[in-house]
Amino acid sequence: MSEATNGTATAPMNGAESLVRTLVAGGVEVCFTNPGTSEMHFVAALDRVDGMRCVLCLFEGGATGAADGYARMADKPASTLLHLGPGLANGLANLHNARRARSPLVNIVGEHATYHRQYDAPLTTDIEGLARPMSAWVRTGLSADAIAADGAAAIQAARTAPGQVATLILPADTAWNPGTGIAPVPPVPERARADDAAVAEAARALASGEPVLLHLGDRAVRGEGRTIADRIARKTGARLLAMTANARIDRGAGTVPIERLPYPIDQGIAALKGYRHIILVGATEPVGFFAYPGRPSLLAPEGCRTITLATPEEDQIEALERLAEAVNAGPAAAPDTGRRPELPGSGPLDQDTIGAALGALIPEGAVICDESLTTGRNFFALTRASAPHTWLQLNGGSIGLGIPLSTGAAVACPERKVINLQADGSGLYTVQALWTQARERLDVVTVVWSNRAYAILRGELANVGALNPGPKAIGMLSLDDPAIDWVGLARGFGLDGRRVETLSAFTDALQHALRTRGPYLIEVVL
Amino acid sequence: MSEATNGTATAPMNGAESLVRTLVAGGVEVCFTNPGTSEMHFVAALDRVDGMRCVLCLFEGGATGAADGYARMADKPASTLLHLGPGLANGLANLHNARRARSPLVNIVGEHATYHRQYDAPLTTDIEGLARPMSAWVRTGLSADAIAADGAAAIQAARTAPGQVATLILPADTAWNPGTGIAPVPPVPERARADDAAVAEAARALASGEPVLLHLGDRAVRGEGRTIADRIARKTGARLLAMTANARIDRGAGTVPIERLPYPIDQGIAALKGYRHIILVGATEPVGFFAYPGRPSLLAPEGCRTITLATPEEDQIEALERLAEAVNAGPAAAPDTGRRPELPGSGPLDQDTIGAALGALIPEGAVICDESLTTGRNFFALTRASAPHTWLQLNGGSIGLGIPLSTGAAVACPERKVINLQADGSGLYTVQALWTQARERLDVVTVVWSNRAYAILRGELANVGALNPGPKAIGMLSLDDPAIDWVGLARGFGLDGRRVETLSAFTDALQHALRTRGPYLIEVVL
Repeated sequence: MSEATNGTATAPMNGAESLVRTLVAGGVEVCFTNPGTSEMHFVAALDRVDGMRCVLCLFEGGATGAADGYARMADKPASTLLHLGPGLANGLANLHNARRARSPLVNIVGEHATYHRQYDAPLTTDIEGLARPMSAWVRTGLSADAIAADGAAAIQAARTAPGQVATLILPADTAWNPGTGIAPVPPVPERARADDAAVAEAARALASGEPVLLHLGDRAVRGEGRTIADRIARKTGARLLAMTANARIDRGAGTVPIERLPYPIDQGIAALKGYRHIILVGATEPVGFFAYPGRPSLLAPEGCRTITLATPEEDQIEALERLAEAVNAGPAAAPDTGRRPELPGSGPLDQDTIGAALGALIPEGAVICDESLTTGRNFFALTRASAPHTWLQLNGGSIGLGIPLSTGAAVACPERKVINLQADGSGLYTVQALWTQARERLDVVTVVWSNRAYAILRGELANVGALNPGPKAIGMLSLDDPAIDWVGLARGFGLDGRRVETLSAFTDALQHALRTRGPYLIEVVL
Repeated sequence: MSEATNGTATAPMNGAESLVRTLVAGGVEVCFTNPGTSEMHFVAALDRVDGMRCVLCLFEGGATGAADGYARMADKPASTLLHLGPGLANGLANLHNARRARSPLVNIVGEHATYHRQYDAPLTTDIEGLARPMSAWVRTGLSADAIAADGAAAIQAARTAPGQVATLILPADTAWNPGTGIAPVPPVPERARADDAAVAEAARALASGEPVLLHLGDRAVRGEGRTIADRIARKTGARLLAMTANARIDRGAGTVPIERLPYPIDQGIAALKGYRHIILVGATEPVGFFAYPGRPSLLAPEGCRTITLATPEEDQIEALERLAEAVNAGPAAAPDTGRRPELPGSGPLDQDTIGAALGALIPEGAVICDESLTTGRNFFALTRASAPHTWLQLNGGSIGLGIPLSTGAAVACPERKVINLQADGSGLYTVQALWTQARERLDVVTVVWSNRAYAILRGELANVGALNPGPKAIGMLSLDDPAIDWVGLARGFGLDGRRVETLSAFTDALQHALRTRGPYLIEVVL
């Protein structure tokens, strides 16, 4: 038996090391890991190779959500390391969110050795089957010879516009057998250019004199796209509206303000009322987040025409520039975000005063992760004149993203303060990710809105016509028996925190947390 | 618009209520729930219908793992209520464990209304694709008319031997449109009878004079099967061995003692050395839990013949009875489990003294959930003479089962003390399930082995040949920076607990917890 087949590291490097070196050479510099036995050669290779930061997570949803947050802020993929089918399964909900946010991401999923699969050992599952619903690209490595090229193809897939989830399944023998060294990443295709016909059609709609909405998503909703869209709007009288949830908006003082399509179905329908043309720029057609009895799926009014200027896959900025030219738009104007709110000195602790306090206190350069749900419905409007900052949302609607997302954003941007605005019910899905913040000394403030309920569902129960819920239904939407002690949980995971029940205690705690470097949790009892 | 289509509850009952009443009439009396918007009509129906206990979980892995624990102890399915694809995804790892334990289980997974799916709303996913790898039966409801019959078919599938995971996907309009009332559950097929040829072949092997192993799993390893197997063994000189992990073994004083196939690969190979025949009774062929360089996948020695007396699907008890008759086995003898261990009075706090303390203190009728992993390797042997009790293990190898499993076992058996022996790294995957224990006042003692490491992986890293791990590899297997405060976490979730660092403190705490009704957590610092 050769040294290579009995698993010791030898020259030439094994498949695992070839893969790790390929990832590093391809610009993948962080691995959010939750490894198991089948990944031990990959772990050993991570150990030997410089250039890959390994961030340990206690649960796979923490790893995939962190990779999403990293990708949104770094504009490039991180990797994850997951343990066979069940480990991947635990990461799928946040992969779903990453897919909807169009975040580039490379999953490495360990698998039994190729020859071992046939014996249906206890952890054997259909990993490709599990990966496919949440991945744009899935491949199972067949040999150590090819695994570096597989990894390079995964990077290419992840980086292909608009950003994709790529999942490479790594059988243990493709990791431990001799590899071939670094494989180069094949060229990543440029974003496609939007059709001239689409630009012309959008320009005609804007010239029609009828009400037009520019619906922005993906890259078009970030700073640069919004500035061009604003030039078009000023020239033509069109209005701008962002999607309900957006992967990343750079906003605050000096940026073009934008509202979002409201989440509640009736408000969403009302927001689109009267428009005759909706021009989609990186956005998808406005549809109900859910179906409701007696409500339409499509939110646009009847007779309204939808024009796709640029899909999320296409170059939205370039398309907006052509459209600006076609309508003869003027230069960018100084955006009016209004006046930065005053710190509210007194009053009740409610959504408005909290929003105003956030508006006053968000520091320049902050990254806001927003999984506030019901509590935060006003926060977006109340922070439009804050110091310049970046806002990340829950695109896929699968709750349990905030703590992981803020973890990954902080890894990507160590020099920026990360503030996670966290609904309590949602935060409990991936609460373990707090530990990674403590372990990595990440500069994240988690603010938990502790209403001790699935408040969003109380509204939804009424929306579907169940107007008089009984004790069993109310019980299933309540988290108050027993009440969860969030500060206790935070301390259990190794970070400090404070519980607040008044407005002044909240603003004190937030100011303290913003002054102090490192992870901190504020439980806001509502 | 009729009242039914705008969602108010009317006569005739809607699809959701038809389904809930079908489940209750079919003997499904518990629903472990983590609902969302698309499940609101089902929640409203649960509210209206008597006979279904609703147990709220903070995370879907808690719901599916609890349904597994319930099924093992109640020998019938519970239901779960999960929210679309991502909610199902969060429950998949413990569905994998349930599948491997052959637990009957009915998942109800909410889905967008049938007409809404085409719009690819944010939470839209391929739910069937996600369900299939972990389910024996998957169906998407097509109409409210048929949804009760779909539910009845799901119960039939779940109850089909050896016990299966059935997943019914419930589009919102099949819940809110008018239903048809209760559907009867079609007849559940009897367990198939094992082949006469298999019995004859096993009898020949037992008469050969060569070493024979009776390898027991599924029903054959419970009390009754073990008693018959013991009669065969006494007559023929064969030895009994259970699988490495078993869904349920009723054991302790007065039952036939049995050892298990060891988990570590070399010990597993050694345990099978010398056998010429292995007779499988409800067990699957012994294979390595993982592949290791230079080690075989099949653990039986070369030349050893494997005979399947009865598969897990077949009637193992009846097959054992026929085999006993064929070898002319004598009557059952009083089993010798040895003497119940003394409570160790002094000594270090280590695996042996802990095992001895458990052996002395396990109360009669206790249900032990064992996710001890490395810490608990000796516990099985040291508790063979304890008071009669039931032992549940991690069949699928996907860690994060213990807290949910013990939750479900306690729901099934309110009169029995449940003791969850929990490795710390594993417990952190589904730690939220502690809250459900507090909410439901379940009589569960969780004993956490706090070694602050993925200790099992340290051994595995060496097993694959990485003998000198560096700081990055060691860091990825360590949970000590920061150390997790398990008692703090427990209190955060609303239950009491105690940290112990000495043997006497451990035995005191365990005795206290066994005397006190309700959930309690003991953190054992190792």
